[in-house]
Amino acid sequence: MASSWLNIAADAPFSLANIPFGIISTKRDPTPRPAIAIGDYALDLKAFSSANGFSEHAEIHQYRSVFAEKTLNAFAALGQPFHRATRAYIQEVFKSDTKYAALLKDNVQFRDAALVPLADITNHVPLAIGDYTDFYAGKNHAYNVGCLFRGPANALQPNYTHLPVAYHGRASSVVVSGTPIRRPWGQILRDPKAEPKVPSLAPCEKLDLELELGMFVCRSNELGSPVPVNEAEGHIFGYVLMNDWSARDIQAWEYIPLGPFTSKNLGTSISPWVVLADAVPKKVGIKNDNELLPYLKEDLKENVLNINLEVDLTTAGGSKKTVSKTNSSNLLWSWPQMIAHHTITGCNLQTGDLLGSGTISGTESGTEGSLLEITGGGKAGIQVGGDERKFLQDGDTLVIRGWAGEDGARIGFGEVSGTIQAALPLF
Amino acid sequence: MASSWLNIAADAPFSLANIPFGIISTKRDPTPRPAIAIGDYALDLKAFSSANGFSEHAEIHQYRSVFAEKTLNAFAALGQPFHRATRAYIQEVFKSDTKYAALLKDNVQFRDAALVPLADITNHVPLAIGDYTDFYAGKNHAYNVGCLFRGPANALQPNYTHLPVAYHGRASSVVVSGTPIRRPWGQILRDPKAEPKVPSLAPCEKLDLELELGMFVCRSNELGSPVPVNEAEGHIFGYVLMNDWSARDIQAWEYIPLGPFTSKNLGTSISPWVVLADAVPKKVGIKNDNELLPYLKEDLKENVLNINLEVDLTTAGGSKKTVSKTNSSNLLWSWPQMIAHHTITGCNLQTGDLLGSGTISGTESGTEGSLLEITGGGKAGIQVGGDERKFLQDGDTLVIRGWAGEDGARIGFGEVSGTIQAALPLF
Repeated sequence: MASSWLNIAADAPFSLANIPFGIISTKRDPTPRPAIAIGDYALDLKAFSSANGFSEHAEIHQYRSVFAEKTLNAFAALGQPFHRATRAYIQEVFKSDTKYAALLKDNVQFRDAALVPLADITNHVPLAIGDYTDFYAGKNHAYNVGCLFRGPANALQPNYTHLPVAYHGRASSVVVSGTPIRRPWGQILRDPKAEPKVPSLAPCEKLDLELELGMFVCRSNELGSPVPVNEAEGHIFGYVLMNDWSARDIQAWEYIPLGPFTSKNLGTSISPWVVLADAVPKKVGIKNDNELLPYLKEDLKENVLNINLEVDLTTAGGSKKTVSKTNSSNLLWSWPQMIAHHTITGCNLQTGDLLGSGTISGTESGTEGSLLEITGGGKAGIQVGGDERKFLQDGDTLVIRGWAGEDGARIGFGEVSGTIQAALPLF
Repeated sequence: MASSWLNIAADAPFSLANIPFGIISTKRDPTPRPAIAIGDYALDLKAFSSANGFSEHAEIHQYRSVFAEKTLNAFAALGQPFHRATRAYIQEVFKSDTKYAALLKDNVQFRDAALVPLADITNHVPLAIGDYTDFYAGKNHAYNVGCLFRGPANALQPNYTHLPVAYHGRASSVVVSGTPIRRPWGQILRDPKAEPKVPSLAPCEKLDLELELGMFVCRSNELGSPVPVNEAEGHIFGYVLMNDWSARDIQAWEYIPLGPFTSKNLGTSISPWVVLADAVPKKVGIKNDNELLPYLKEDLKENVLNINLEVDLTTAGGSKKTVSKTNSSNLLWSWPQMIAHHTITGCNLQTGDLLGSGTISGTESGTEGSLLEITGGGKAGIQVGGDERKFLQDGDTLVIRGWAGEDGARIGFGEVSGTIQAALPLF
């Protein structure tokens, strides 16, 4: 990658190669608006486009009103070729030696108006989310959890390797990184073996994280029209990091027979910057020993996103521990396969829909994407400084980071963070 | 109820006592806009309000811009007192002997502009639905289905009488009455006893209806702030009929462990006219033998909606049979209890959210709300004219009707209908 006239650290997540999109506001202008992140700055696309920043590129300039919207939906709906062109043009603007380099570099007034330090911005949920679906494509996670509940022989359900298992999640409770998470009250069955089974109403005692990737949809399909798996890549806007906070004790009691409900709708956190579909490096190789049904068979074999993922837990007292290091290649299903399955019965995906990957865990100790797995169901606590943790305590802060690529051209996601607040008195 | 200057049949669902709200368009004006239904007419509220129809009522007139919206969300968000005032005022306009009766009755031009025959309108989904949640509050249905799968002794799960079981549904695939339903393709495990378990890709062979009520939310709550059960009634905008189309064979294979997914997101049909919360008669009496946890205990005991429900199946050949007659009083949980449970872990409900009751079945033959129950899991077909039905066939039309109250003051829902279209070739 060519170098930039902007000073960008070699290990910066938002390199010149990246150019992720988000929604920001500032003290000077509290209206949410589109931006990209580069180095330690956000380029305010509303300011940039309204000052004719795109006028050298007729197609983008023609649609510049999408950069005055309060969400990225209108931009996303324009489709991947438009996103690609916008990213490439912005890269030209920031490169050292292109015809567009002078645009911002040599115009202090324009630069001051459009280039805002990341430290001075507030991030918002980047798209208006119509529906949120959470998959369960992390095979090692599904296996680990299955072992805890049913033993190794029956850990994976018979359908698991035939279809990407998923459930509809709650769109309204998706929040942006940094939003505090309130410890929820809920129904808990403290002794599952006692008869009769009588639940208690109490603050969650087994609050957990789930390390996931999120994917935003750009192209819609009509109700009744499944998306062919080999066309599904074109429906992907981009990716974010996701923490699907989970109340394990509430989940265990409520989830049979219709799946998780109140145990998940307490909040789902996402990172603010959407890394475009094109920007993420892919590689060959999902290993599924099954003969797949035709609608899940991909021609393209480079279907695995190669994203490094890490989870830090910091206690209220300031002790910090990296509790997981893993990689997105641990998913059994590709995003095109998830889209193909989601729509096989005719479901209409819409611009702005969010799909979650499911919890991503590796096969070895230290690579698990949830405390449920790390602590063996809460049996073996981990040490964080002088404190023991089986599940999350009030004041704990969880940070998930993710990045692909090499130094100098990192495709970084930044982070998704959240701090646990104590339960409030009920009513 | 006083009589109307408009000719309204004694058994009309949209009596002067009712005044349900919906979204309509017409050939003359294809822009969707709010309306109420009365007798054989819709009162176009955009036309009515813009011609100063509400000018005699300062408060409604002040907010008349909500009647120029394309959905009822803005109207709903104004809250129950506003809905109540609007309904009462419109009743005055249509009553024979009130100071407002002259407004439409004696003004032919105004009447022609605002009063449109129902035969001339197109209905639309009445609110922009943020999230759709489907409960499972029909105890007899849960018991009947449990018996089919697990036998009578274990028919109801241990949690069933302690909390209103629910799952997140798919909002984007909610459609208005009359929308055709395409038979979906999906993964089906034809022989559940064979090993290894290998599914087929095929058009659904067990397509079914689910007779439900739907409820729209008017008042939002903040993330992290549960709604107290005794305040929950104020969050209800109103009710519609709902058919939660279900692909039973696809559902059986996919639903463990995270619940129904593609088997339900093929389409969910609702009736177009929202009957306001106030309009539906309530009575005493849910029988739940459990001691409920405090957040589910209601002070108000009139918590049962008393709505008669019927299902007609008409074949492509024109044979017709009423396959179910039941009543909404078969629900184990009240709507306030469902709201209280939905929000107990902090979930934020929003204006326009749709909640489904779950399938409503009685205890006796002929009162079941699904073909799964009526035919004992597809074992015993029913006769519709000369045809046998175990599940729905291509060309079948399902109509659900619902009403409360007596002739002359019926609180009718009208109907929700849908016709099954043959599966399309896949790709």
